[in-house]
Amino acid sequence: MAILRIEGAQIITMAGGDTEVRQGWTLEAVDGEITYVGPAEDLEPAAEPDEPIDGSGCLLLPGFVNAHTHAAMTLFRGSADDMPLTPWLEEKIWPVEAKLDEQDVYWGTTLGIAEMVFAGVTCFNDMYHHPEIGARAAIDAGMRMCPSGVLLGILPNAEELLAAAREFTREFADRDDLCIHPMLAPHAPYTCPRELLERVIEAARELAVPIHIHLAETEQNVAASMETYGRRPVQAMDEVGLFSVPVSAAHCVHLDERDIEIVAERQVGVAHCPGSNLKLASGMAPAQALLDAGARVGLGTDGCGSNNNLDLLEEARLAALIAKVREDDPTVVPADVALRMATIGGAQALYLEDIIGSLEPGKRCDCILVDLDAPHLHPRHSLVSHLIYSARASDVHTTIVDGNVLMHDRALTTIDLDEAYARVTESAERLFR
Amino acid sequence: MAILRIEGAQIITMAGGDTEVRQGWTLEAVDGEITYVGPAEDLEPAAEPDEPIDGSGCLLLPGFVNAHTHAAMTLFRGSADDMPLTPWLEEKIWPVEAKLDEQDVYWGTTLGIAEMVFAGVTCFNDMYHHPEIGARAAIDAGMRMCPSGVLLGILPNAEELLAAAREFTREFADRDDLCIHPMLAPHAPYTCPRELLERVIEAARELAVPIHIHLAETEQNVAASMETYGRRPVQAMDEVGLFSVPVSAAHCVHLDERDIEIVAERQVGVAHCPGSNLKLASGMAPAQALLDAGARVGLGTDGCGSNNNLDLLEEARLAALIAKVREDDPTVVPADVALRMATIGGAQALYLEDIIGSLEPGKRCDCILVDLDAPHLHPRHSLVSHLIYSARASDVHTTIVDGNVLMHDRALTTIDLDEAYARVTESAERLFR
Repeated sequence: MAILRIEGAQIITMAGGDTEVRQGWTLEAVDGEITYVGPAEDLEPAAEPDEPIDGSGCLLLPGFVNAHTHAAMTLFRGSADDMPLTPWLEEKIWPVEAKLDEQDVYWGTTLGIAEMVFAGVTCFNDMYHHPEIGARAAIDAGMRMCPSGVLLGILPNAEELLAAAREFTREFADRDDLCIHPMLAPHAPYTCPRELLERVIEAARELAVPIHIHLAETEQNVAASMETYGRRPVQAMDEVGLFSVPVSAAHCVHLDERDIEIVAERQVGVAHCPGSNLKLASGMAPAQALLDAGARVGLGTDGCGSNNNLDLLEEARLAALIAKVREDDPTVVPADVALRMATIGGAQALYLEDIIGSLEPGKRCDCILVDLDAPHLHPRHSLVSHLIYSARASDVHTTIVDGNVLMHDRALTTIDLDEAYARVTESAERLFR
Repeated sequence: MAILRIEGAQIITMAGGDTEVRQGWTLEAVDGEITYVGPAEDLEPAAEPDEPIDGSGCLLLPGFVNAHTHAAMTLFRGSADDMPLTPWLEEKIWPVEAKLDEQDVYWGTTLGIAEMVFAGVTCFNDMYHHPEIGARAAIDAGMRMCPSGVLLGILPNAEELLAAAREFTREFADRDDLCIHPMLAPHAPYTCPRELLERVIEAARELAVPIHIHLAETEQNVAASMETYGRRPVQAMDEVGLFSVPVSAAHCVHLDERDIEIVAERQVGVAHCPGSNLKLASGMAPAQALLDAGARVGLGTDGCGSNNNLDLLEEARLAALIAKVREDDPTVVPADVALRMATIGGAQALYLEDIIGSLEPGKRCDCILVDLDAPHLHPRHSLVSHLIYSARASDVHTTIVDGNVLMHDRALTTIDLDEAYARVTESAERLFR
């Protein structure tokens, strides 16, 4: 029996979305499942842990959920910035991706996991080539991941990729001993013909896994959908039947009122990616309207080709900041709402809210300690404000996934960083030669 | 003779705006003045330093210039978020500011300096009450500062404040033994009647110091100016003669084409404050158009009431990101331009480009070392891209102002942080009781 106990921290549980800061509480987990969160004096210990974690001077909260990324794209970081999306994809990204081998994906993903663990991310939704290799990196690091292999209808081997994705998904969908939650990932409506989408929907239903897709990212996406379907992307996908299964949709920038209604009614998970959307000049998603309509809204970093980091806390700040200027209203997406999107909202966007996203008995123990000993976190008017508007990823002191400590006192426990640096440097040199 | 030498770092000098990364260069400074930046083998040492600074694994560049802030407002951090500007100022900020005493300003400013030094800021342009106390905090910490006492025409003691500001400015304007560069600070066109502005302009000319002012921050500012002057704020201030002396103008969000021309022609320094402008829903300043017109454009954090931190690197990232979505063009404000705004552009905005903003012989030695040993800074396609799009303030390893090391290996050398925490906590408790 593995017992984890965290004592002395201030705690935000996010249970039911609650952002109240609790003093004098303790968290206990047994074999990776949270068994107690409450006043220290009321704890009936399961047994004594080897060594309780001292959370004094820290804030304990659920780990951040990165609801959309392509982790191995750390390999592309800084290789092509300040470009429009289409030439960026067609000239800079896809030609290099065509050369990727399994080692590249393993170490690119490992570097991404290292970066995320340092930044307090405890779960990431990943769409990329060689998903079985990305998943291997996550398993080796002890990270929670929703892997999916990207399905592009425009590729000659689309059939083969779908068969492989079914196989891969089936392998992991039956196992609950690992922190791996597979999805199926048709890339986007504009890159997947209707027949492929329909077969993926059928497979998702059969395998009981969600679909991960890019949706309504740019104006051009809307124009392409109008041309193909005579409808905007969300309405077209509704008509195709995509939302008859659980869907995690990245971006959702260009939505009209009807689109927003559909996203909310069909309970589509939205991964709002403000950093990537700004950097590629895609636009600003209607986050507050989606929340008001009752959608499942989380946050994503997108890949390091377009962000250029995997810092989910930065996305939370960006989400809070840009919503205000988008709506010309400084009261929208306040700090507590941004914090919800970064945690329980992300879990909802991935259909994982029953197991992660808040600190409650019965859920898996994915949590972080944020060190409050920094000038930018003083004085202490509001810790929720400080988290969203002033803290940085580097303030994360400890990251725990499924009850296992992956980072403590800014040191990783499961990843050899020097090897990761060497391997990604090798890969980058070969790929960009 | 105090000799500082930094060896083994990669160097971006920013001389003439150059962002090329140099390998194998050394920097030497004698008594705070840079005497050599160039290939290590060509250095003719002034003498041997006590201990050369090892920059290996780091990037050496000019310190960041925070071209607009109210440092003591660290005291307000997190006390009132997600509110519109006018009730925020009138209900939350000004009533508390009326209670500020000298101790509050000293420790609030000291905490802000600590935060900035940790974030690689080596100079800040500060407008606040009790400027002589803020300047005392900067002198005690060894920080470079442009202090100015805020002049509000709407206050009953405006006359007294102007006399005090003249006195204070005269005291420091004659001294070049300190890193203190005073300015005069009429708060804004909408809070200062024309007569007061004219008297401040006259004083600035007489004392040979620049003016620091808020300008065209909100739509309401534009409306107020139209009502008072029948012109937009920039055109009104031009007509009043403000730009006949050097001016550092914060915000400059709401500018039309003629305004942009005037700002460029009159060489007005602009402190672009994207974080504050987003958070208060003020808008997005036309940074690229100002740069294209040839204006002096730097970056500011604004005060912690509206930001909520003093992280200039975050402002550089925000400036690069929001320009793209503002102009619907991902090629505007690329990484090198953002880096220029954060360094030499800021120096230009403060009329200090002859002494800081780049690493060149003859300038004062204000510089930082950024530690590159982090997952989010790998692989190494472009260090300029990594700085702007992926690095964080916490990657700053060493901060040097006027040749003095104020922070090394994440430890401050001149500020007692525990005392600062205790004092600002006391102040916050009293002020917000």
